Amino acid sequence: MEIQALAESVRETLATHDASGLRTLLEDVHPADLALVLAELEPRDMWRALSALPPDERAETFGYLPTEQQVDLARTLTRKQLADIVFHMSADERADLFNRLSQEQQEALLPGLAQAERDDIRRLAGYEEGTAGAIMTSDYATLAPQLTAREAIEWLRREAPDKETIYQSYVIDADRRLLGAVSLRDLILAPSARRVEELMVREVIFARVEDEQEDVAGMISKYDLLALPIINGGEKLVGIVTYDDAMDVVEQEATEDFHKAASVDHLETSVRDAGFRLLYRKRVFWLVLLVFGNLFSGAGIAYFEDTIAAYVALVFFLPLLVGSSGNAGSQAATLMVRALATGDVELRDWGRMLGRELLVAGALGLTMAIAISGVGVIRGGSEIAAVVAITMVTVVIIGSLIGMSLPFVLNRFRFDPATASAPLVATIADAVGVLVYFGVASAVLQLPPS
Amino acid sequence: MEIQALAESVRETLATHDASGLRTLLEDVHPADLALVLAELEPRDMWRALSALPPDERAETFGYLPTEQQVDLARTLTRKQLADIVFHMSADERADLFNRLSQEQQEALLPGLAQAERDDIRRLAGYEEGTAGAIMTSDYATLAPQLTAREAIEWLRREAPDKETIYQSYVIDADRRLLGAVSLRDLILAPSARRVEELMVREVIFARVEDEQEDVAGMISKYDLLALPIINGGEKLVGIVTYDDAMDVVEQEATEDFHKAASVDHLETSVRDAGFRLLYRKRVFWLVLLVFGNLFSGAGIAYFEDTIAAYVALVFFLPLLVGSSGNAGSQAATLMVRALATGDVELRDWGRMLGRELLVAGALGLTMAIAISGVGVIRGGSEIAAVVAITMVTVVIIGSLIGMSLPFVLNRFRFDPATASAPLVATIADAVGVLVYFGVASAVLQLPPS
Repeated sequence: MEIQALAESVRETLATHDASGLRTLLEDVHPADLALVLAELEPRDMWRALSALPPDERAETFGYLPTEQQVDLARTLTRKQLADIVFHMSADERADLFNRLSQEQQEALLPGLAQAERDDIRRLAGYEEGTAGAIMTSDYATLAPQLTAREAIEWLRREAPDKETIYQSYVIDADRRLLGAVSLRDLILAPSARRVEELMVREVIFARVEDEQEDVAGMISKYDLLALPIINGGEKLVGIVTYDDAMDVVEQEATEDFHKAASVDHLETSVRDAGFRLLYRKRVFWLVLLVFGNLFSGAGIAYFEDTIAAYVALVFFLPLLVGSSGNAGSQAATLMVRALATGDVELRDWGRMLGRELLVAGALGLTMAIAISGVGVIRGGSEIAAVVAITMVTVVIIGSLIGMSLPFVLNRFRFDPATASAPLVATIADAVGVLVYFGVASAVLQLPPS
Repeated sequence: MEIQALAESVRETLATHDASGLRTLLEDVHPADLALVLAELEPRDMWRALSALPPDERAETFGYLPTEQQVDLARTLTRKQLADIVFHMSADERADLFNRLSQEQQEALLPGLAQAERDDIRRLAGYEEGTAGAIMTSDYATLAPQLTAREAIEWLRREAPDKETIYQSYVIDADRRLLGAVSLRDLILAPSARRVEELMVREVIFARVEDEQEDVAGMISKYDLLALPIINGGEKLVGIVTYDDAMDVVEQEATEDFHKAASVDHLETSVRDAGFRLLYRKRVFWLVLLVFGNLFSGAGIAYFEDTIAAYVALVFFLPLLVGSSGNAGSQAATLMVRALATGDVELRDWGRMLGRELLVAGALGLTMAIAISGVGVIRGGSEIAAVVAITMVTVVIIGSLIGMSLPFVLNRFRFDPATASAPLVATIADAVGVLVYFGVASAVLQLPPS
């Protein structure tokens, strides 16, 4: 059923207070779709719809809601209702929710849970946001090395209901140190008496709790993993990150870099639901900073005020020249920022990239100079046309080199390369463009600067 | 082992021509890592290293190489060597490679393969790039509905070596119509005599061969699927797309949108390996187009030449004002482009977004106007300061509204919203900015336009 139609039906059924009708309606709806529909309802109706689901599905649907809405809904629930739903949530989603609750809510929630869940929440909720620890789950399957394939499958069968995945199991010793990994596929294919230690892969790819979520997602993507085991400082296995969470991270990190590319700070929430104040806050810093950055262009213009007064026609080409420099620079910066983010390019590639960029930018500048020189002749005569053409080639090269180098420089000094946003590059390129333009004009038109 | 160190060892071992040493060295290396190392070698050495691997791993490593390098290497192989490696590749990677080979190579390859592989290649290679058909694999597991859980597991066990995944199987009738889906987890948990038709999920989420790869990846991400079944026009199951391929699509589409955001056309290859001509071609179109776009700003300036001649001080604030308009517009455009791409925002949200944008942009413009008005007073007196402040608020609002609306307009007329790049928005905002600035100046300073 289409989401829109489903939303309509849910609303209608809620209005009739027909509990069994509601159950029937929601039976075959995927939790991800249902969460989309519920997200549009008031907390009261949201809870009525959730109550019509069996506990597992209720918790799963709840887990698909945006975290802010989980918190809003949690606020309207009794301690018992909240504990019930939290009990059935997956370990990583539970910890995420817990971290967003007020201290009061946290304190109200914990006594309602069993000791095991309490410890688990405390453990997972302690990791810094953006790290492997913060996105991992503790619902993973482990095996002892001496088990036979048949015993291992039997064990996984019993464990399955509580585990995020049983397709990948981790073999650990008594100290929870990671000895190997074995897939369910290998267990099923193996002779039933073969031991896990003979079947397991010993060179296990793993990450550490403090590793960045971006790198963890990158490893899962690179090695096509179903899950990546996470190790703590004591070399003990403490969790796994699954491919579906990695996929969310890839999307989330791309969005963050995207926003940064336009000098918007990291938005923690969806653009759709972001409020006025949040959007203002995330955009104002760079805008104001860049206003002052643009003063350099203004200062450059002021320095050449006499040149301009003598040749007002020069101003005609100003937006075009500084704009072109900024555009070429934005292209170069964006290509590098993304290539650095995906690992396509590394710091040490800078030299080689620079040489190529010089060639490409030179060719681009030349093309643009030719394209505009006709207009130059018509508007200002051949001398002005020459000034415009020389300036165009020069500023496109300079803009491009600034654009492609800035991400490397930022990366080198451990800043986020994505800070090399199109607006920042354009602002720098503008200032340089003004100086080059009027500098070239003064030289060619043989005017002394003021 | 670190990639750098591994590359070193591989080079050294190749130099000594020690075949068994090479085998030992490569034994435990992940194919994804090995491919990174091989990508730096000459085709001859690449092939020598690949030859040291068992056929399956050789094909897997080969599959991890960038497609261009696969093609380059294929060119140096004998017909038999190529057929051998192609035979062991996964169905989707095989079809991708086939599509990039020259017609000659294709004709040389096909006779070397068995009928089944030939048909499979022809079938998969026929789908348009960017569609579900082009990224799906035909190596999926199917089950008959009457099988018991025990029989189904036994069947999957026999099929496993040739299948991309056995964790998700698809239940089909005699006409290959999709009846349901069942996970290995459910098969293992079920009583062994229970029939597949009783265990399967009947409401299977699926896509069609012609669906866009972006949407397919979005479904896999949204529903946390391991694989998504793909149906053809005759309603028959013809393939699956797995989560790892979906992850690659998510990254690839994000990169494409990223590049578009800086008005760079879609690069089919990595930035690192892109040549001079390719980069030039992908960047030149928009740059030249925007040069002519910027002529509108120039024309605006020319129209107000007398105003400028009378108040040369006005030019000081020009870059700052038009830059601010473009920066705010870029922010607004990028927020919308990304939100439309991830499905966070839809076409029908435009009205609501517009109202909020008006408020946010007004507040931003006011903040920036206040920030700059001190400089206005110092440089040009209170009248000029007033002109600058009024212009700032106006152009930031206009720039933002253009920036946020353009992606919706493009989307509405079935263009890619990502075409609303920062440079395009900045160019439009520039032209509007010039008109507003000198228009306000003429009014406030009571100068007649030329």
